[in-house]
Amino acid sequence: MLFQSCRELASQVAQLLVVRASGHLLDSEREFPLWEISNSELRSYLEIGVGGVILLGGHILELEVRCKSLQDYSSGKILLCADIEEGLGQRFKGGTSLIPPMGLGEIYKKDPKKALIFAKEYGICVGRQARLCGLNWVLAPVCDINTNPANPVINLRAWGEEPFTVSALATAFHKGLVSQGVLSCAKHFPGHGDADIDSHLELPIINHPIKRIRDLELIPFRTLIKEGVSSVMAGHLLFPKLDSQNPATFSKNILINLLRKELGFEGIVVTDALMMGAITKYCGEGEAAVLAFEAGADVLMMPRSPEVAIQSICDALLSGRVPNSRLEEALQRRNQALEKINFSSKKNKSFFFENPSLENDNENYLKNKLVFETLKSSCQKKIEKVVNGINFISIDDLPKSQILTKNAPALSIPSSSGFRSLICHPYAVSPWKDDKLNPLDIDRLGEVPIFLQIFSRGNPFVGANFQEERWNQAIQQLQRQQLLVGLAFYGSQYLFSDLTKLLDPSIPFSYSPGQMPDAQERALAMLFESRHMNNEIKDFNLTDFTD
Amino acid sequence: MLFQSCRELASQVAQLLVVRASGHLLDSEREFPLWEISNSELRSYLEIGVGGVILLGGHILELEVRCKSLQDYSSGKILLCADIEEGLGQRFKGGTSLIPPMGLGEIYKKDPKKALIFAKEYGICVGRQARLCGLNWVLAPVCDINTNPANPVINLRAWGEEPFTVSALATAFHKGLVSQGVLSCAKHFPGHGDADIDSHLELPIINHPIKRIRDLELIPFRTLIKEGVSSVMAGHLLFPKLDSQNPATFSKNILINLLRKELGFEGIVVTDALMMGAITKYCGEGEAAVLAFEAGADVLMMPRSPEVAIQSICDALLSGRVPNSRLEEALQRRNQALEKINFSSKKNKSFFFENPSLENDNENYLKNKLVFETLKSSCQKKIEKVVNGINFISIDDLPKSQILTKNAPALSIPSSSGFRSLICHPYAVSPWKDDKLNPLDIDRLGEVPIFLQIFSRGNPFVGANFQEERWNQAIQQLQRQQLLVGLAFYGSQYLFSDLTKLLDPSIPFSYSPGQMPDAQERALAMLFESRHMNNEIKDFNLTDFTD
Repeated sequence: MLFQSCRELASQVAQLLVVRASGHLLDSEREFPLWEISNSELRSYLEIGVGGVILLGGHILELEVRCKSLQDYSSGKILLCADIEEGLGQRFKGGTSLIPPMGLGEIYKKDPKKALIFAKEYGICVGRQARLCGLNWVLAPVCDINTNPANPVINLRAWGEEPFTVSALATAFHKGLVSQGVLSCAKHFPGHGDADIDSHLELPIINHPIKRIRDLELIPFRTLIKEGVSSVMAGHLLFPKLDSQNPATFSKNILINLLRKELGFEGIVVTDALMMGAITKYCGEGEAAVLAFEAGADVLMMPRSPEVAIQSICDALLSGRVPNSRLEEALQRRNQALEKINFSSKKNKSFFFENPSLENDNENYLKNKLVFETLKSSCQKKIEKVVNGINFISIDDLPKSQILTKNAPALSIPSSSGFRSLICHPYAVSPWKDDKLNPLDIDRLGEVPIFLQIFSRGNPFVGANFQEERWNQAIQQLQRQQLLVGLAFYGSQYLFSDLTKLLDPSIPFSYSPGQMPDAQERALAMLFESRHMNNEIKDFNLTDFTD
Repeated sequence: MLFQSCRELASQVAQLLVVRASGHLLDSEREFPLWEISNSELRSYLEIGVGGVILLGGHILELEVRCKSLQDYSSGKILLCADIEEGLGQRFKGGTSLIPPMGLGEIYKKDPKKALIFAKEYGICVGRQARLCGLNWVLAPVCDINTNPANPVINLRAWGEEPFTVSALATAFHKGLVSQGVLSCAKHFPGHGDADIDSHLELPIINHPIKRIRDLELIPFRTLIKEGVSSVMAGHLLFPKLDSQNPATFSKNILINLLRKELGFEGIVVTDALMMGAITKYCGEGEAAVLAFEAGADVLMMPRSPEVAIQSICDALLSGRVPNSRLEEALQRRNQALEKINFSSKKNKSFFFENPSLENDNENYLKNKLVFETLKSSCQKKIEKVVNGINFISIDDLPKSQILTKNAPALSIPSSSGFRSLICHPYAVSPWKDDKLNPLDIDRLGEVPIFLQIFSRGNPFVGANFQEERWNQAIQQLQRQQLLVGLAFYGSQYLFSDLTKLLDPSIPFSYSPGQMPDAQERALAMLFESRHMNNEIKDFNLTDFTD
């Protein structure tokens, strides 16, 4: 009998967990097998009551099959979520890839009305595609204000650099998102924008006084809470003026006194991933789950071991360390959120079997229009054909199919003008030599015309991979040696604007905040001759987007 | 009325065409957009009567959706084919990847009975997975005999190096394949195994006397024809002793006198792709279609322009250059083949929506067993952990997700022993210097322990990318400098056996004919310590495979 009631308790606690799974069908295809639970484990977790799954990777067709299978494994309704901040294509192949939110922040500076319309369409695109694939909870919008250009993890993910832009755009995005019947999430509370280290690796400390936090960091969260955002994600962030001991994830003062009482939030409080370095370096995994739950978190994201998290929370409840009311309110908030999801059309048929394309015309237009609106380019004279040039491409990681396939414009367009591609990534032979003023080893590359393409943005986990100092010197070196014929930069506006300060005005360049093939194509069409653009953008008309 | 009858004729001729399409859902994801018809064109071709599509690339879930859509666009039954010679995974992500046929040829040398059982299971695996995804025509088995180790295009795709092995294994494969209700294809008639150039690029000339061709090249074809193979593919091959003017594709003597009359073949004669260099360099596209059709080909594979092919054949029929009986017999053979396909279960439901995994236990066992059986390894002492070693990987192409993801064993296993990965591919900074005896630029790499992994096999289009002479020297250089700690080779047994002749017996090595992650994992488990093997192979028992 005791055993029975323990099992019931464990099953209730399990509902509060979100476990991580690959969006790929097969275990062997998992991209992060250390973190992504195998299919058989996933099934048994869901059968004992685990209440949510966060998905990453794979094709949209796999995602649809996954969401259906995962829901089938559970006897109750489950939360199916993903970090979709920049279009479904950011996480799942075949979905639409949009430029990052910061691009809309830039449009907002010039034309707020236009930017707000775009942001709402952006939310509709994310919400619609997520729902059609079977997800019901989108972990967006990011409500952080990127006040620190050197922020290694938020950066382009933010909607802007000051609170009112972020509030306005995140709200517009949110309206679009929730119109599609999925849950939303404001993150990372109380604000990750001024961090200077990556919380995936270490715990950032943000030492602002309370007044500044109220007047800046909290503004977008306050607005989103008024908009009825479904959930707020607590960041792994230490704000000593709010709580000198605990990161927000574990802080009653931040989650209860600030978020619930002062801001009046009544939805789900969810933690950021409990397996992130900021947490695991400082406390054991069972204790992390209990501390977050005790402090007021209703849903626990990605505990390293779901069993340990469940057991530790059960122990804390049974021992009286945490009152039962905590469990009751968390379950109630989860149930209230689930009620808002439209589960009505019981998914027995594949969407894709009847509709081979996910992206609709509106979304395709939005995608290309946003690339067009955020492109920066200067080109007095198109880059001429050469006999033996180098298309020198720098990327942060192994060439990925979403960015660089054989057929990517970043390879094919310069190639048709005589530039052979040379891709430099962390796993390739280095192009650098030990000479600060002339860091590029030109002997190795050959003294030939060089077209330079750099893909770089603040990426989680990667840290400060982009060596600014070296690139600044390299660009000056190439100019001195009269080898640089052009530059395309995809990603961080901050890194780009530093580089352009060094560029000779005669050197043609293009910049896009997006890195996807559509962005490459448009950026390069500005620089190279005689290339047919696949995606002509008609004149923009605000009535193109109708509610 | 004349116009009407012309349209009817065009629609009949169109049935004989197989056009090429990407397996990806979206036009923007096509890997070879110059060759792969866009979705809207595809639809209009099928609507005017084009009778077949050959698919390549994409995920198995996309393939299923594609096959259904393509069939829906057509008013008649269409042929849906793919070059699946080594498991569905060779062409479509998520399908099973098997070691190449030559691996079974090697097993046959030691244990023919076992090899024949494997070959039949191999055929079952290919046929079952192809059918479940919606394909109905598998362009296999290869019946070429790889008598020339330097063959740049057949090589590991052949079942062996002499006629009786190839006959026996191709026949066993064929029995398995057709048991799954799909059509088959013996290729490349009259035999591509002794070519020394790639017919994708140029027309190979094979100068053997007729007696040798009868006694060698034709043996597997003769056997497969007796087995009832559904189709025979004519190769772009000039056999001057059979026809001094025309490649097999255009040769009445080869297609009619030899294949039909002498060998008694009554099924479909299909051309190899008409857009291949061997053809397009020597004749116009319309003329190529007419010449093949006139010579006796019933189905025309991948004409560069379907419109031009249809128009040219219509003109040839209307002008009397080709008799109408040619059209009648070709259509009749196509219809007879279609009748053999099991279309009964009208596909209105997605297989994957009910069955998230395509590979069954038998297929998983076969895949791992074949890797295990064909692995060659020598390791007196496992490779020790190092502090700063290089895992030097050479591949023929950009890193592909089927072979090298971040999570591929070829990267992760050496990495856990202290070897950082350095991937050399044609788009990376070169590791070579201009020194014949010491071609590897060790200054560039660092004088550290090097574990070498080479992925190389004869690949169509790539030509002789693998620079044997240089690698031979590089291995000797690394041994002289005492930097080489081990070697793993994936692919061509010929290239590998040349390299091992130079290897010091103390250097550990592994060889697999397969390049997929399962092959990497097993090859490296032989060389590195303390790695848990995911895929333990139980003792093999012939009764494991039941009919």
